[in-house]
Amino acid sequence: MAERTHYCGHITETLVGQTVTVKGWVAKRRDLGGLIFFDLRDREGIVQCIINNDNQKAFQIGDEIRGEYVVEVTGEVVRRSNPNPDIKTGNVEIVVEEITVLNTSLTPPFYITDEHEADANLRLKYRYLDLRRPKMLKNLMIRSKTTKVVRDYLDSHGFVDVETPILFKSTPEGARDYIVPSRVNPGTFYALPQSPQLLKQLLMVSGLDRYYQIARCFRDEDLRADRQPEFTQIDIEVSFMERDTFFSIIEGLVKEVFSKIKGIEIQTPFKHMDYSEAMNKYGSDKPDTRFGMEIHDLSDILQNSQFKVFTQTLQSGGTVRAIKAEGEFSRKEIDGFTEFVKKYGAKGLAWISLKGGEIKSPIAKFLSEGELKGILDTFNNQDGTILIVADNVKTALQSLGALRLHIAKKLDIIDKNKLNFLWIVNFPLLEYDEEEKRYIAAHHPFTSPILEDLPLLDTNPEKVRANAYDLVLNGVELAGGSVRIHQGDVQQKVFKAIGLTEEMAKEKFGFLLEGLSYGAPPHCGIAFGLDRLVMEMVDTENIRDVIAFPKTTSASDLMTDAPSPVDPKQLEELKISLKLD
Amino acid sequence: MAERTHYCGHITETLVGQTVTVKGWVAKRRDLGGLIFFDLRDREGIVQCIINNDNQKAFQIGDEIRGEYVVEVTGEVVRRSNPNPDIKTGNVEIVVEEITVLNTSLTPPFYITDEHEADANLRLKYRYLDLRRPKMLKNLMIRSKTTKVVRDYLDSHGFVDVETPILFKSTPEGARDYIVPSRVNPGTFYALPQSPQLLKQLLMVSGLDRYYQIARCFRDEDLRADRQPEFTQIDIEVSFMERDTFFSIIEGLVKEVFSKIKGIEIQTPFKHMDYSEAMNKYGSDKPDTRFGMEIHDLSDILQNSQFKVFTQTLQSGGTVRAIKAEGEFSRKEIDGFTEFVKKYGAKGLAWISLKGGEIKSPIAKFLSEGELKGILDTFNNQDGTILIVADNVKTALQSLGALRLHIAKKLDIIDKNKLNFLWIVNFPLLEYDEEEKRYIAAHHPFTSPILEDLPLLDTNPEKVRANAYDLVLNGVELAGGSVRIHQGDVQQKVFKAIGLTEEMAKEKFGFLLEGLSYGAPPHCGIAFGLDRLVMEMVDTENIRDVIAFPKTTSASDLMTDAPSPVDPKQLEELKISLKLD
Repeated sequence: MAERTHYCGHITETLVGQTVTVKGWVAKRRDLGGLIFFDLRDREGIVQCIINNDNQKAFQIGDEIRGEYVVEVTGEVVRRSNPNPDIKTGNVEIVVEEITVLNTSLTPPFYITDEHEADANLRLKYRYLDLRRPKMLKNLMIRSKTTKVVRDYLDSHGFVDVETPILFKSTPEGARDYIVPSRVNPGTFYALPQSPQLLKQLLMVSGLDRYYQIARCFRDEDLRADRQPEFTQIDIEVSFMERDTFFSIIEGLVKEVFSKIKGIEIQTPFKHMDYSEAMNKYGSDKPDTRFGMEIHDLSDILQNSQFKVFTQTLQSGGTVRAIKAEGEFSRKEIDGFTEFVKKYGAKGLAWISLKGGEIKSPIAKFLSEGELKGILDTFNNQDGTILIVADNVKTALQSLGALRLHIAKKLDIIDKNKLNFLWIVNFPLLEYDEEEKRYIAAHHPFTSPILEDLPLLDTNPEKVRANAYDLVLNGVELAGGSVRIHQGDVQQKVFKAIGLTEEMAKEKFGFLLEGLSYGAPPHCGIAFGLDRLVMEMVDTENIRDVIAFPKTTSASDLMTDAPSPVDPKQLEELKISLKLD
Repeated sequence: MAERTHYCGHITETLVGQTVTVKGWVAKRRDLGGLIFFDLRDREGIVQCIINNDNQKAFQIGDEIRGEYVVEVTGEVVRRSNPNPDIKTGNVEIVVEEITVLNTSLTPPFYITDEHEADANLRLKYRYLDLRRPKMLKNLMIRSKTTKVVRDYLDSHGFVDVETPILFKSTPEGARDYIVPSRVNPGTFYALPQSPQLLKQLLMVSGLDRYYQIARCFRDEDLRADRQPEFTQIDIEVSFMERDTFFSIIEGLVKEVFSKIKGIEIQTPFKHMDYSEAMNKYGSDKPDTRFGMEIHDLSDILQNSQFKVFTQTLQSGGTVRAIKAEGEFSRKEIDGFTEFVKKYGAKGLAWISLKGGEIKSPIAKFLSEGELKGILDTFNNQDGTILIVADNVKTALQSLGALRLHIAKKLDIIDKNKLNFLWIVNFPLLEYDEEEKRYIAAHHPFTSPILEDLPLLDTNPEKVRANAYDLVLNGVELAGGSVRIHQGDVQQKVFKAIGLTEEMAKEKFGFLLEGLSYGAPPHCGIAFGLDRLVMEMVDTENIRDVIAFPKTTSASDLMTDAPSPVDPKQLEELKISLKLD
């Protein structure tokens, strides 16, 4: 092999007259009688090569090469007679002097171009060919660049990158663990970490002061389209720092990433919004505030309504909430919205439309003039369609929150250029789990309550606010974190509130409680979903576009066929056996 | 909390007269009547604080604080009347104006200083306290800095950081896998990767061109002192590059790490040594060349000796090899050496000492004058003790290689300031496995043979050299790698040579063979043991000193008690059961 002098994608006009050596994959080949043209592709781009038939040896090889053959080309860069303005190298071509085939290729199962997107499963089976598509290679490179920017920033702010174990302990609060049988201690298991939460807290106890890790995490959950059994988080923890100082460091990190990767200068500090405001106005703890259509409460107005659907709901502790969408909708569209909110548990959807003073509504006849006026006043008497859900508070807010997003997308009223960052703060500490008949931690049980709410833990646990925060961008949760509990007695109180006796707490989290008793500093932290952040960087909605070797929604790898059966000898050594039905 | 203005370790004379706020752990406290002194420690160092009893509020708190309490101190930096030249902050102290206890601490189970090294198991159980020792925190910081330097270098050379999956496929060539039962596909298992070898090769097939990853790897092996069930490697792969060009990039990386972390400028390029020379001269594929004592072959000289021990060995295809150590040794010492080589399978050890022309040796009487002269000539007739092993080639070389190191350490003749880097090249491709009665890959089965040796694969497989290389420093393997096979037919040939039928090869490595058939570029790579490299950076022989949360030799975590039993429900979901004796 000769040394490569340039990447294909870097052959531009400045090189005209020079002899270069490039190496890559044959992307397209045309034979025009005495001339062979072909495009050569590498990770940086494509360059056109041309072989004249007066170069017999090269011409013969040019005759044999096919798509995806790996070749090495040496030749002079010349200006092209018919430039291609669509590509960086479009003004030049290489006149081949020498060409060597470094490897042949079978015909790939799909075209290696950005224009053709093959069947999803085929892409996963031949992942190495899917990744050869320019867009996918670029995604991997942007992911790499993103983590580099993150590391540079955190390093320059004194954060220490510490690797925590993957073979760890099962901590049965949270999602389902992946477990790994131990051969040395049969009958026992490691668990793959759902996050390095407890270990990073213990690093704070050790005095590390500022920790980060780009950490692999694992959850054995039933997968949704945007979930993977293993995912990566940018995991950060600091000691001795006030929350708002910490926010400013994190804002600086986000600013840096958007600036260096997307060339977008974002404004900091980010707005703060209470969890309760987010829920009441947007029906979501990750509101998309790029557009209005906020939720309003009609309960007071409809307190004494003759319309039973409303009053019965109100009397049984429910609520009546509404949003207003621009314009009028057909009967069919309204039916669609009704079906939509039903998916979120709402029993139905009422509507009132106003256009040029004219009211249309199937429920208008049940409402008094005052009630109708009150509703229209709530929305400033502007034209549009008011959509109303009467239900328990949670269902009313969640269904309208979802409908709000649904209609905004349908009407295409979301300004894609806006970047609305938002800190959601003051989450509830606990939520009641109907199935388990106990309170569970809304974030995780190591989250500090807001200290003034601490007395409520015994009397009114639902009212206790957590010192937790999420960073939301345009309706997507980018990161979540909290101030942690650093005092053993507070931690014991919270464990008790979620139904752990002192004994159970000791068994599950004894090492944490012990750690807290030896001088734990105040500390707080956050974790970004890296996959999600990179999706934002490369503008994709598909998490598989930003992971080199992703798994399907049934958690399998179609390329290697993992998971797969293992040698029975292996199971014997581990002293486990299969109990298949 | 007030904002911290400085780390404790950064309070120096330039701050005299300023008011600072520091936060940390109480390291030492003395009460001298009207004055309380205490040292405050954080990750950057220690500073002395002083409370006068005219500051009553502070004095009372100072009276209550104990070792490892977490406190916040605000006060003026003043020059110290009795400076302590041993520490960076030794010329100053902080006169406490305000002090707040942020957390209390129980009395730790061991002293938090570098001077006291507690029992190894206690250190692991209270790892967060062990890590609080200045040396251990510093180790973590140096590890972080090392990976940062590595990333910066590789990034600036166009390498793309790609994360490969941890939940992967069991590839039963190599060490024992950790496996993870799948809940979604009961009866099947993921395996944790022993290295990202095949995935990085497939990334080359995808055209990524330059890949790196600081990758977690797993091996379920019986642990030695310097092994951990999970370890980290700096994993690197490139396409289209000649081996020697690749070497120069890797040498640049090592140069950068030594320069940036240890301030040592090393010389490149590194020397190359054939595997066969390393074995013949040093009895090891990772020779320590900081001292001589090379192994010499006495076989020719002793071909026709009357001494049966030698001639019988030679006639049965064995060899006679020797090293020379400086000085004379007592009978007891020689007996010790004999026991030492026996551990390596040698049947015995003969010796000849020469001092001022006088020969002492229990075997001299069996040797002819010419033989004795030949032996002494081999070692230039210099004073010292010649130590001789007659055995099969492998045993003779390995035992003398080990004895060579053993004596050099005993005589303390190794220059600790030398950094002898060495590329060991031209390893054998295959070695015969007596147990399995077949050839196995000496490196791994994806290593390219040296192409001119390819015809020998059918006729004389042991003679085929691999295009593999190790980077050795002072007798320690820092990194290992190889040129990979990029052609399907060569890969099939090597699989066949190690006893895999076409069908078996397809079942185990079908995805690789398929990948090679779609235009795989020539590629090569290397992997550094990061833990080992960091040990070199912090000058320790103990791998646990460079890993935040290491495991014991029985692969357990003493802090969290992992691995541990899991809820039977979890096993049911996974459709596995325990089969304990």
